This record gives sequence, structure tokens and C-alpha cells, in this order.
Amino acid sequence: MTTRYVYDFSEGDKDQKDLLGGKGANLAEMVKIGLPVPPGFTITTDACRVYLQSGKAPESLAAEVTEHLGHMEKAMGRTLGDPANPLLVSVRSGAKFSMPGMMETVLNIGLNDESVYGLADVAGERFAWDSYRRLLQMFGKTVLGIDSEVFEARIEQIKNSRHVEQDTDLNAADLAMLCVYFKTAIENATGHPFPQDPREQLNAAVEAVFRSWGGDRAVLYRRQERIPHDLGTAVNVQTMVFGNMSDDSGTGVCFTRDPSTGEKGVYGDFLMNAQGEDVVAGIRNARPLAELHGESPDAYALLLDNMKRLEDHYRDLCDIEFTIERGKLWMLQTRVGKRTAEAAFRIAGQLIDEGVISEEEALTRVTGAQLSNLMFPRFDASAKSALITTGVAASPGAAVGKIVFSSAAAKEWADRGEDVILVRTETNPDDLVGMIASKGILTSRGGKTSHAAVVARGMGTTCVCGADELVIDSAHKSISLRGQAAEPLREGDMISIDGATGQVFRGAVPVVASAVVDYFEGNVDAASAEASDTVKAVDRIMKIADRVRRLRVRANADTPEDAARSVRFGAEGIGLCRTEHMFLGDRRELVERLILAETDEARTAALEGLRPLQRKDFEEIFQAMGNLPVTIRLIDPPLHEFLPNIVEMTAKMAVAEADGTATQADKTMYAAVQRLHESNPMFGLRGVRLGLVTEGLFEMQVRAILEAFQVVRKSGIVGTAEIMVPLIDTYQELDLVRNSALKIAREKGEQVGPGHNVMIGTMMELPRACLTAGKIAESADFFSFGTNDLTQTTWGFSRDDVEASFFSNYLEKGIFQVSPFETIDEDGVGQLVKLAVSTARAVKPNLKAGVCGEHGGDPESVHFFHNAGLDYVSCSPFRVPVARLEAGRAAVMNPA
Amino acid sequence: MTTRYVYDFSEGDKDQKDLLGGKGANLAEMVKIGLPVPPGFTITTDACRVYLQSGKAPESLAAEVTEHLGHMEKAMGRTLGDPANPLLVSVRSGAKFSMPGMMETVLNIGLNDESVYGLADVAGERFAWDSYRRLLQMFGKTVLGIDSEVFEARIEQIKNSRHVEQDTDLNAADLAMLCVYFKTAIENATGHPFPQDPREQLNAAVEAVFRSWGGDRAVLYRRQERIPHDLGTAVNVQTMVFGNMSDDSGTGVCFTRDPSTGEKGVYGDFLMNAQGEDVVAGIRNARPLAELHGESPDAYALLLDNMKRLEDHYRDLCDIEFTIERGKLWMLQTRVGKRTAEAAFRIAGQLIDEGVISEEEALTRVTGAQLSNLMFPRFDASAKSALITTGVAASPGAAVGKIVFSSAAAKEWADRGEDVILVRTETNPDDLVGMIASKGILTSRGGKTSHAAVVARGMGTTCVCGADELVIDSAHKSISLRGQAAEPLREGDMISIDGATGQVFRGAVPVVASAVVDYFEGNVDAASAEASDTVKAVDRIMKIADRVRRLRVRANADTPEDAARSVRFGAEGIGLCRTEHMFLGDRRELVERLILAETDEARTAALEGLRPLQRKDFEEIFQAMGNLPVTIRLIDPPLHEFLPNIVEMTAKMAVAEADGTATQADKTMYAAVQRLHESNPMFGLRGVRLGLVTEGLFEMQVRAILEAFQVVRKSGIVGTAEIMVPLIDTYQELDLVRNSALKIAREKGEQVGPGHNVMIGTMMELPRACLTAGKIAESADFFSFGTNDLTQTTWGFSRDDVEASFFSNYLEKGIFQVSPFETIDEDGVGQLVKLAVSTARAVKPNLKAGVCGEHGGDPESVHFFHNAGLDYVSCSPFRVPVARLEAGRAAVMNPA
Repeated sequence: MTTRYVYDFSEGDKDQKDLLGGKGANLAEMVKIGLPVPPGFTITTDACRVYLQSGKAPESLAAEVTEHLGHMEKAMGRTLGDPANPLLVSVRSGAKFSMPGMMETVLNIGLNDESVYGLADVAGERFAWDSYRRLLQMFGKTVLGIDSEVFEARIEQIKNSRHVEQDTDLNAADLAMLCVYFKTAIENATGHPFPQDPREQLNAAVEAVFRSWGGDRAVLYRRQERIPHDLGTAVNVQTMVFGNMSDDSGTGVCFTRDPSTGEKGVYGDFLMNAQGEDVVAGIRNARPLAELHGESPDAYALLLDNMKRLEDHYRDLCDIEFTIERGKLWMLQTRVGKRTAEAAFRIAGQLIDEGVISEEEALTRVTGAQLSNLMFPRFDASAKSALITTGVAASPGAAVGKIVFSSAAAKEWADRGEDVILVRTETNPDDLVGMIASKGILTSRGGKTSHAAVVARGMGTTCVCGADELVIDSAHKSISLRGQAAEPLREGDMISIDGATGQVFRGAVPVVASAVVDYFEGNVDAASAEASDTVKAVDRIMKIADRVRRLRVRANADTPEDAARSVRFGAEGIGLCRTEHMFLGDRRELVERLILAETDEARTAALEGLRPLQRKDFEEIFQAMGNLPVTIRLIDPPLHEFLPNIVEMTAKMAVAEADGTATQADKTMYAAVQRLHESNPMFGLRGVRLGLVTEGLFEMQVRAILEAFQVVRKSGIVGTAEIMVPLIDTYQELDLVRNSALKIAREKGEQVGPGHNVMIGTMMELPRACLTAGKIAESADFFSFGTNDLTQTTWGFSRDDVEASFFSNYLEKGIFQVSPFETIDEDGVGQLVKLAVSTARAVKPNLKAGVCGEHGGDPESVHFFHNAGLDYVSCSPFRVPVARLEAGRAAVMNPA
Repeated sequence: MTTRYVYDFSEGDKDQKDLLGGKGANLAEMVKIGLPVPPGFTITTDACRVYLQSGKAPESLAAEVTEHLGHMEKAMGRTLGDPANPLLVSVRSGAKFSMPGMMETVLNIGLNDESVYGLADVAGERFAWDSYRRLLQMFGKTVLGIDSEVFEARIEQIKNSRHVEQDTDLNAADLAMLCVYFKTAIENATGHPFPQDPREQLNAAVEAVFRSWGGDRAVLYRRQERIPHDLGTAVNVQTMVFGNMSDDSGTGVCFTRDPSTGEKGVYGDFLMNAQGEDVVAGIRNARPLAELHGESPDAYALLLDNMKRLEDHYRDLCDIEFTIERGKLWMLQTRVGKRTAEAAFRIAGQLIDEGVISEEEALTRVTGAQLSNLMFPRFDASAKSALITTGVAASPGAAVGKIVFSSAAAKEWADRGEDVILVRTETNPDDLVGMIASKGILTSRGGKTSHAAVVARGMGTTCVCGADELVIDSAHKSISLRGQAAEPLREGDMISIDGATGQVFRGAVPVVASAVVDYFEGNVDAASAEASDTVKAVDRIMKIADRVRRLRVRANADTPEDAARSVRFGAEGIGLCRTEHMFLGDRRELVERLILAETDEARTAALEGLRPLQRKDFEEIFQAMGNLPVTIRLIDPPLHEFLPNIVEMTAKMAVAEADGTATQADKTMYAAVQRLHESNPMFGLRGVRLGLVTEGLFEMQVRAILEAFQVVRKSGIVGTAEIMVPLIDTYQELDLVRNSALKIAREKGEQVGPGHNVMIGTMMELPRACLTAGKIAESADFFSFGTNDLTQTTWGFSRDDVEASFFSNYLEKGIFQVSPFETIDEDGVGQLVKLAVSTARAVKPNLKAGVCGEHGGDPESVHFFHNAGLDYVSCSPFRVPVARLEAGRAAVMNPA
């Protein structure tokens, strides 16, 4: 059996996104529930993958397209490109995941030098020529790769000769002339005339859509959104309907709820006598959807009805595109709509209340990334700030930065560390690089569904759009206010934009913590009147997550302050308390004495000096954590980190030696710096290696921990002290440290092991430890995966070096979808984690295992750790709520 | 069923070394074939392991010992410690692998204040008291841990008062007094009297032997010899027979062939009226075995007969200890004897000739380490060197170094980089550290079976012993020649010793290549008359190895010279040709221009400058290798390695800036040095990362390789160019390089892939690559494991840093048995190799896979790679013969 590559809309449904793409699957679903969709068919992602791999469409595709085109022609009673009354079709990409504006579309296929007259007979001369010139323009640009400037320049030229401003002012003759110019341009650029055969047009357009999957912008977008590069796109071929055919035609986009707040109602924009891209691009200022009632009451009523049916059917906010052709409503697209973080939580709550979804399902309607968004700081409302104007609140957040006027400048300034706000009249897909580099985006044109708004929301970047009082002069890099004489803003000037209110301020406005953080901090009671709807929704969702999750969540905290905050944020213990900061500040002198010690006595004296200080640190942390467990990592970094930098010291000494001003102390220190210098310190004498080589160091720490623990226990606190040995490669290393710690524990009368209040375990952060986890488990009371170091060693690169030197290059080349330091690399590092857990639990079925690398707070990674069977994740205190939420989501989305 | 811990000698056999240890298994074997062995039993290694883990002997042991002791008593018709005619026993360690002199022995157990008189009645008064004082002395030192000086001082004291020199000059009364002193010393040191209960003595001695397994010297020895620490030792309890009971008693050691050359004959030493340790320690100069005929003709005849039976039975050279008690011969020990490297090869050949072993079995009788030994340089016989004296040729090799007189000095001098020769009157186990640190060992006392000789042979260290003309004054650190007035040699003076001839020279004698190397170089024809017996034997064995081995052997070679040598040494291709040296020397300026290039043009110009130079290099290598395959690794090290060191440059610039003498060129260079500086360069921008980030770099190399390949092919050579991409983490990296290389290959008209003359593959040297080998295999024509980097990343340490900072500490602590950079870490790194091979071959069953890390030439590692199913190993040219031999051995010893 050969693979089938084409499906009629009437054959699929919304669950076939892998095969039909999101757009195709949703079109099929609308057909299925009886909504008015222009007939058409979907070419599958399989076909695209074949094309991308072999450079050719599958052989059987042409025949299948012919067959399904036949169905369309039959349904519409017209044939493609019929000179008398042509069927015209659109060819649109539609990948599994929405990539708005990233890939190509060709409209009006089927027009040629003959059928344009047939269309003129049916729909009017001006419309026919305008449609043809649009086809030529899109085909030229998209299918043939001709610079769009070639076409735009001709349009400008003709408008200039005719002394008109708008495209709509051009008449049929103008547009017919443009068609001639465009055909000549195509032939000049490619050496071939524009294909008159409609089927040839169709085939070429389909292949162009396939190719557009690999276009630069599409690749960049997928990287940003972590969409795999090997999915490919489906292609939808659909009967054209025209919102620009007459004054009783129109087009628009709408949402079944407010995507910023979740309020139910009628939200959207439309334009009469226009095509869809005019709304999306925000070129003309769209009108609020409610006004459609006055323009086309029947279509409006039907649209409202369809919106309700869609929301009931999808059980979620839907985002809809429609066209009215001569009064008849056509549904062109629907999907579960993007929404702001606030709206996501509120809608989830509303849908529970409405009985539409269960509490568990509500967890699938929000994400950790959204929660994290809500925890960003906002502008301080009480600050006296110079409001310049208010635009459309398109993507929430409080962004402060310097004005730049181009994507290139945004990238360049950001690369050198500046926070920038990209200011554009409107954005288009070519601006993506700059949009990613910016803290915020401000445009003077376009509504909530404009390119800037949609992309910014998707990326979680603050955006204010449609601020039409602003006169943006990119050429001269200045912004003035329409009709005002005030000093213009220039490149590099500071502004602040509030994506939740649409406000734009001159200068840098101070920011305050978010209400959601206030809630987590315990400053706001979610049950109280003062709590916002968002806080109430978050509170409700967090309670569900905490109820259903299996993974425990701990925090990485080194100080009593962080420990206390982590408890407020819901941490169930400390998963990583680093001890090296306890060697800094006023303790540095003792550490230097330890390093420079030439006798056992001197070393012991230095260690004994450090012990009470460390004990005090641990006391405070145990106190802050109460009865919760605290995992303390014995010192990890190499000792030379506590000494001056060798490069700086060498320069200093060279000058001092030349001057004869070098002191004996300097020389002694320099000798130590040289002795301890390492070529690759990240992979040198640190962790357990340092502990085993430096006699008494770990023992001092173990004593300090146990002494602190015993002091705190006197005050009634009964937590668990988990002593963690870093950078283990072999079970022998752990055994040596464990045995010496057990000896100290015996001295202090402490029992050690599961079921007791003291445990001794290890960090799993080297491939060899993971590969020999069965042996190591025999000597460990717990494992904690240090996925930062494990990532460094599994990949063989040091984060310090490679992020700067080649990560961006790798992201551009698609080698990384996302940095492996941000989201766990499941294929490599993740395999080691799973291998270690399974071999260790084969030896010790109840071995406690967690993760304390930064991945512990990364949403995707939390799901991975849930599935790998870990007991807990530990992350920075601020990410604890996100980890709790994602742990709940993981439990619901990955049932055992 | 409880475990059985004790076996009579009559119950075991030679194949039970794991359980009974080597000594016990061989004693059992001798009983089995009817040789006269004093009755006894073996306590198993299981019992030792229980003791080491729990600190107590197994509970059932005592009863078992009682039972087996009963068998002995019955056989001998005496009971242990019987006051009238006591049965005396020895307690000796015996581990699976021989650890000569490393562990403890207690003799004469069963004597006490009563039974000493019974023994006196039977064997004479002096003998009885001498035996008792020996028991007290050994028990005190070994079982009770009392400093042996305590006892030695008493003996010296009594000899001084009696004005005698030798122990043998002491009479019964002196020895009886010594017994009193020794008992007092024991009571003073331990607070307990010497145990009079013979069984208590026995139990304590057994436990002392168990404990001695963990003694410092034993641990050090095992580390040196790579013997696992967890084997434990067996304990042999055996009826005492006495070589020192009378003038018709004696003791000796012998070999069934000359252990230095393999000649058949009568080799050994003996002493009349002496105990075994007198021979082994070389305290008295032993007599050649042939002279035993005159002393004890019956025993001698029986011994010769037994020697023949043993060699026939073991089918190999045997090493034998015997004692004659009042004319009766007792066999005390046998084992397959250690031998020199030369002898090993010659014996293997002889045994084939004699029809004793097959050609395949001959491979199990030699080792790569022995072959490697034979390839060491020897002294230049033609050099006029000042011969000082000639001693016993105890362990071959040519060692040159500075004289040191103590183990501590040897270690200290060696640690600071000096080559040293340890000069001692005789050595004992306490000297082991110094012996390991030395290039050679020279003693004035003892024969080929002395401690110095046995240990040095085992370690492959050059040794001359028994050079009795030398008067060694350790206290004053000088060596003079007996009866000569010449200037004495002093600490730090250079000497040269020849372990093959026993010659000792003043000064540093020049060395020449070994005859075996000459043979490999093709300078000597093994079939010719001038070829030595050793060369003939090596040639024969190498032919067998080449015939049976499955693993191919390649060389790591970067220059035409190395390539040519590797072919002479039998390499079947180049497994690793590094290209970075081609960026050094007069090319450095072009490389600097490449690095400093600010425009595409400048970069391209620098690359184009390098291309013809690289092409020439490759041409020469292809030419040298003829039709053999050549694997060329694209450039691997980070670019900053080609620039000045940042520390030095910073110092220079600091001074220059202070002086105002910094030039613009300096500043430009310094800026580049700073820009390219990495914190952990081993884990930074190198390998494929560098190739992907530096546009045109890999492409230039690929072009140069293909161009060179095509030039050489014109001269009729048809090899294979294997282009290898280093430091791959993901298949995407390989795909990118592969695709660009394929494009160049197409341009040049070359086909790529298995079956063609160009292949593109990858180094597997990062854990992630191994973990995702299935995907990577899809894009690779071959894999080559770079086990150096793979070891660094799997363990998470950089060789540069850790070998100096903690390896010795880890070796001392027993965490490493051997550096993982020397022998592959099978549990960690080896697992990754096996995983990668199996997952890759699941995708591509015929994928060629080899190893090009330094482990490729390490004997143990070669066996591992054979078992892992690799196709070839690649190593330095000089190690190629060793790898060929070990590959043959692996095939024989690990049949599929």
C-alpha cells in the first residue's frame, strides 16, 4: 500500500494535527460540525517531509491532487481556471503548531490571461484585475523568490503617475497594466513566462509552501518556540472566497473570549471590502467586531452562533477567521486561541465553574511559562511618570529600554548588553530577529491581532501596538506626537511600555513585584476582596496542582533569606544548599590561611576557625526550614577560586617585579596562585576530589552540619539533614567520605540512613557516576542529579565558554532547538538520568532521587523528571511555584 | 548450607586459585600428582573476605580448622604443640596472584615454653631455641605489629656481648635468653604475655595473614600490578619441615628452565642448613643448584625427577621451593615461574617445538608488556664505557640514572623529574616505593631469586643484583669497590646498569635500539643467521598473532616519517592523522592571519594560503601509506592554542603599557588573545564546533585532502581517505559537515561511502555522541572512538589538571587501580563504547568502528576492544607490534 498524501476537509478531524497540520485539522473539524467552510483539501505533512528529504514531491501526489480537485470542482460547479467562470483556490501552509505569518500563502490560483476575463464577467473588471495582480505578486515573491520591492515599486510608480495614495484608488485599467508589468518582471527575473496553466500554478505553489518550512524566518521561529524542525507542514488548498469583492463583502478575526482577560463576549476586528491579510497586517485600522452588526446583520448573527458552537465544541477559547462574500459568511479558520497568561488562568477557572472541564483538565489549560509571566514585575502605579500616549495593550509585561528603530539595531544593541524597545510603524516577519532581541515592542498601527501583537504574545514579550498618536520616522530615528510640538524621542532615549494597559511613558519607570508574587509571598490572601481575579485563579489552580502532583518540589537556597522565601513559595525542603558562599566575605582570610598552610597545624587551625562560622550558617538555615529536609552540599569549587585571578595577578606581579615593589606576601600568594592554577578548572580538583585531597575539609563541614543540627533540634525542630557529596565518579570516593562522616556521626550520637534524621547521599553529575549508579547506590542514602554539570560533561562543553562562543551559531543552524542548559537534553543527559535511576533502584528500590540542577524549574524538564520517576525537583525559590504547577500538569498529562 | 572455608591439600587442584589462592592450589596439585608435600590445609579467600568486611573470622571457621588440623596430626602422628614431640606448623598467605614478600608468614607455630623442650629432645637444643625465638620474633612483628627493630636490637646486643658476627654463631643458651627477652618485649608492647596455647597462636596468625592483605605494602603492590583489592588472600597451614635442622638438611629454589633465557637445564640456588627465607632474602650467598648433587645426592636426584614431572604436568617453566630435612626432600611450593621477556618468547617457541603446546596456546605464554620490554633500547656495545663491576643479571633493560641510597630519596628525586638508580645492599618489601620510582635497581647481595630480582622482574624494571664487589655505605652515601682505592661513587653520580648482562658502568652509557626493534624496522631478517634467538622467537609469535587476530591494527601518525615507520611495524593503515601540526611552524603566520581576519576576504585569503601546504602534507602521507586506508581528523584544538599564552601576554603587556612600549601589533594580538581566551579550553570551542563556527576552515581541509588524494592516485596508489569529524555531540553537527564535504566531493568527482575510496565518519569522544550513536550512525561511514577525550568527559576531569593534582592520592587510596588514561575504564567509559557500538550496529550492521585513543596500544584495553566487537585499534607506531600481539592473544583467549 502506498501512503496516502491528500485528504478532503470532509475526511479529517481536529485530532489529526500531526498529519494535516493545525489549520487543516481544524478546517476538517468545522466541516464535521456543519459550519460553512469553503471546500478544499489538505496535502499531508508526510508529503512535505518527502519533499524536504528528496527535493521532489512524492510521485503519487499529482494523481491524488487531481482526484481531490475534482471533488472541489464538483462541489462548486466550476473548474479550476475555467475561462468562463473560474474556480480560484488558495494554497496555504498549516503546520502542526501555529507559526503565524512564518510561512507562505498564494491566493487566487487559477487566474490567467484568459480566466481573468471570466472572473471579470462574474465579479467585475476591477476586482478581476486586482485579483490577478495579487496572484502575480504573491506567486512572483513566494513561488519564484523575486524581491517584493520589484512589484511594490511598480505600484508606487503607477500611484504617483495617477496622483493617488491608496491601492484602492487604482482602477481596472491601472491594475491590468500592473499585471503586464508583473508578468514582464517575472519573465525577466526567471527566464520563463508566468505559467498560464492553472494546475502548473497550483503545483508550484504547493512546492513553495513545502520549501517555506525551511525558510530562515520559519527556522528562527521554530527555534524560538521550540518546535521540532523535522515535522514539516501540511498544505491546504481551498476554494477562494472574497471579502474584497463588494461593499457587502468583508473579512475579520474574532475570539470567543477576551484573550487578555478571559471575559466572555464578542472580541475581534473586521474590515469591509478587504482581504484577510489587510486585517492581520494591521495596514488599515480595523473596526471592533460589534460594529459588524450594522454592516451585515445576517452574517453577524450567524457568526455569533458559530462562535458559540465552536467554543462549546472545543471547550476553550477559539480564535476564528471569517470572510463574508456578498453577504454570505464563510469560516476560514479556527483554532484554540492564544491568550495572555492572566487570561489563561482565569479562563481555566471559568471553564471549571461552567462545568465544561474538570479540575485536572484545567491544569492542561495553563502553563508554567504563563505563571512565570505573571510573576514578572509590573510598573509602580504610584510613580509619577510622564505618560506619552496609550495604545493597544497587546502583550502584558512592563518593559523598560532604549528606543531602536530597526530589527538590526535591536539585535546589535542587545548583543552589547543594552535593554531595547523596538519601535516600528508596524512589524512584519522580517523583524523577528529584532523582536526576539527586544525587551518590548511598540507599534503605531495594528490591533490585537496584528503581527506584532500575535508574535509578542507568543514569545511572552511585552507589546503595545496601534499607538496611532505616535509619528514614527524610522529614517531620521525620531518619534513625535501627532499634532504636538514637544521634543521628539530619539534613538537611545529611554521609554517604558506597559503591555497590560497600553501605556507608554517617557524615561525609565520603576517597577514593582507582581500581584501574583505578592500572593505567593503571603502578602495577599486569595480569599480576600482585595485579591484580583487573576490571583484567585492562580490560587485555585495551584491548589489543584498541589493536590494531584507526585513530584515534590524543593528549592535551591544558600541563605536563611532564600530558605524562608522558598518555604513561603511552597518548597517542601531545600534540595541544594551550596556551602561555598560560606567561604567568602569575612571568611576569605581564613580560607587563604587554609590554602597557604604549610603544616598540618596551620591547616587544622584554619579549618577550626571556619567551623563555628559554618555552624552558625547551618543553624540559621535549619531554623528557617523548620521540620523540612535540607540537603547540604559539601564544598564543590576548586580552592583557587578563593584566590586572586592568575591573569590579573601575573600582570600585577610583572609590574611590581619591574618596579621592585613586590612584597613577600605578594610573592607567597602568587606562588600559591600558580601552584593551584588549572587549565580547565571546571574539570579539575573540585568536589569530592578536593575533599579527599584536602585533609579535614569535608570533616570540618560534616561536624559543623551535625553540630548545627543538634543545636536546632533542641528548639524542637525535627528536620532531616541530608549531607550531599559532590562530583562523585566512583563508589569508592563516596565510601571514603561516607565512612569518615559516619565516624563523626557516631561520635555525635547520630544515626545515619533512611528513617533517621541524617542521611548521606551524593550528587549525580558525571556520566561515569550515572553509568555505575548501581554500585554507587549501595553507599548512598539518596541521589540528587546535578544536571548542570551533567550537561557539561555529557556534552563535553563548559557553559562558561560555549554559550558565548557558539550557542547562537548552533541555534541558528538548528543544531539546538533550545540550550541544553535551559531544558534538559532528553536524548543524551536524560538517558543518563533514566539509566542511573533504574539501575540504582534495581539495587535499592526505595532510593530517594531528585534533581537540583537549574532544569528543576524548567517546565518541559519537570515533565521529563516526572516521567523518569524522580521523587523531587529542586529549583531557585522564585521558580518553585512554576515547578509545583508543572509537576501537577505532569501528573495529569502523563498518567502512570 | 553454610559456606565451607577449609580444604585439605588433598582436596583441591591447581584450577582453584580463586578460592585457594595460587600457593594453596599448587600445593594441592602437587599432592594430587604424588609429590612429597608436608601435610596441611588451606583456609579460603572467602574466609578472608568475610574477615575484611566484618572484622571477624567466620563463625564456623574454628570448628573446620580443628577438623583439618586433626587430619594433619593423624598423618604426622604428632599433635600441635605436644610437649613431648610437637607438631609445628607454618601459616602463610597465598593470594590468587603472586605477591612475593608482600604478605605475612609465621613459622614454627606450636612452640611454647613446654614444647620447646620436646623439640629439643627430638632435634637438638640449639635448633629448638632458635626455632622458638624465630616464632616469637615473627609473631611479635607480624601478628602483634611490634617494630622488628625491638627484636633485631636484642640480637645485635647479644652478638656484641658474645663478640660474634653471625646469627649462626649464637648457641642454645644465647637463643634461650633471646626467647626470654622477646617474651618480655611482647608483654611490654601489648600488655599481654605471648600466647602459650598453640591453637591461640594459630588463630592469631591466621587473622594476621588476613589483615596483611590490607597492609600498605600489599596495597601498593597490587596497585602497581593491577591486582584487584577485593580478592583477599587464602591462608595455608602446613606442617613445618626444617632445612636448618642439621647439616644434611637444606633448602633452595629452582626453575625448570633458565628464567632469563628459557634454556632447559638445572637452574636454582640452595643453602645447606638454612631456612627458606635465608635464600629468598639473599642474606647468605646461595650456591648453584648443581652443587646439591655433592651434598645430598638422593634428594638431588628426586628433585630433578620432580622438576621434570612438574614441567611436564604444568607444560611450562615451573618455579619451585624445596626443603631437605635430614636427607628427605619436601616440595614446599611450585608455580608457573616468572621469566624475562626474552625467555617468555623463547620458551613459547621451544614448547611449540617440543610439541607441548599449540601455536595458539603459545600466545597465552607471552604478553604485550613483555614485547614492549624487548623494544626498549639497550646499551651501545661499541661505546667505550668504564665498567665498574659485573653482578647478577636479574631483570633486563638498560637503565641510566643518578645514584640514590634509600627508597625515600628515590621517590623524592624521581618526583622532581630525575632518573635514579636505587643502590642497596639488599632490598626488602619496605623499599617498594623507591623501587617503583627508580629506573633501575642495583644490589650487592642476593641472587636471581632475591627480593630485588623477583620484584624488579615483575615490574619490568632493570635490575642487577649480587654485585658483591661493591661496598655500599648507605650512611655515608658512597659506594667503593672492595679492595680498591678508586674514588668512591656518591649520591647523585651517574651510573648505567645492564640488566641483561649484569654490567655496571660509571657515567651515562649511550643506548641503542633493541634487536627486536631492529627486526621490526626491517633491518634484520628473522630467518638469517645474524638474527638472535629472541628475534626468531618474536618473529614466530608475531606471525601466529597476525594469523589468528580479528582486530586490525592501525597507527596514529601525523607525519610521513611516522606513517612509514608504522607500515614497517605492521600497521594496516592510519587510524588517526592529526592535522593541527600542519598549522604550526612556518604556517603559524597564516594561522594568525586567519584568526585576526576582520573580513571574509582576509579569512579566505589565509585559508587559501594554507590549502596548498596542507595538500602537500597529505600527499606525503598518502604516498607513505600506499594502498592502506588513512583516517584524517579535521582540525580539533581551539584556535587560541596558536596564539600566545594569555598569562604571559598579560604580563608582557602590563609592563609594556607601563613603559609605553606597547606596539599596535601587540595590542591587536592581545585583543585577539583576550577574545579567544576560554576558561576551560578542553571543553570549549574546538573540534566540530570550531569547524562550524569558522566558515571555510573544514572545507579548506576537505579540499586539500581530496586534492592530495587525487594527485597520489595518479601514481597508481589506491588507498582510502577517511575524513573524520572530531568532537561530535549530535547527528546534526555531523550532517552539516558531511553535507558540505559531500558537495566538495561531488565537485571533485569523488564518490563517498563504504565501498568507495572516500569515507566520512566521526570521532566518538563525547558521552552524548555515544548515547545517541544510533542517530549519528545514520550519517557516518565509520566511527572511531577517541577514548582520551571520552575518558575526560565521562569522568569529568581534564587530564592536564588531574593527573598532577590528585591521581597519586587516588592511587594511594585505591580509588584507581590504574589511571583510566592508561587502561580503559571498562565500567564507565567502556560501557559507553559498548553501548555506542551496539546501538549503531543495530542501525548499520556493518558500520566500521575502531579506537584511536591511546588505549589502542594498551594490552588490557586491546582485549576489551576485541570483546566489544571493534574492527580495529590504532596506536602510536611504536606500540603497533604490542597491539598486534595482544589482538592475537585476545582472539585466542576470548573465543567468539
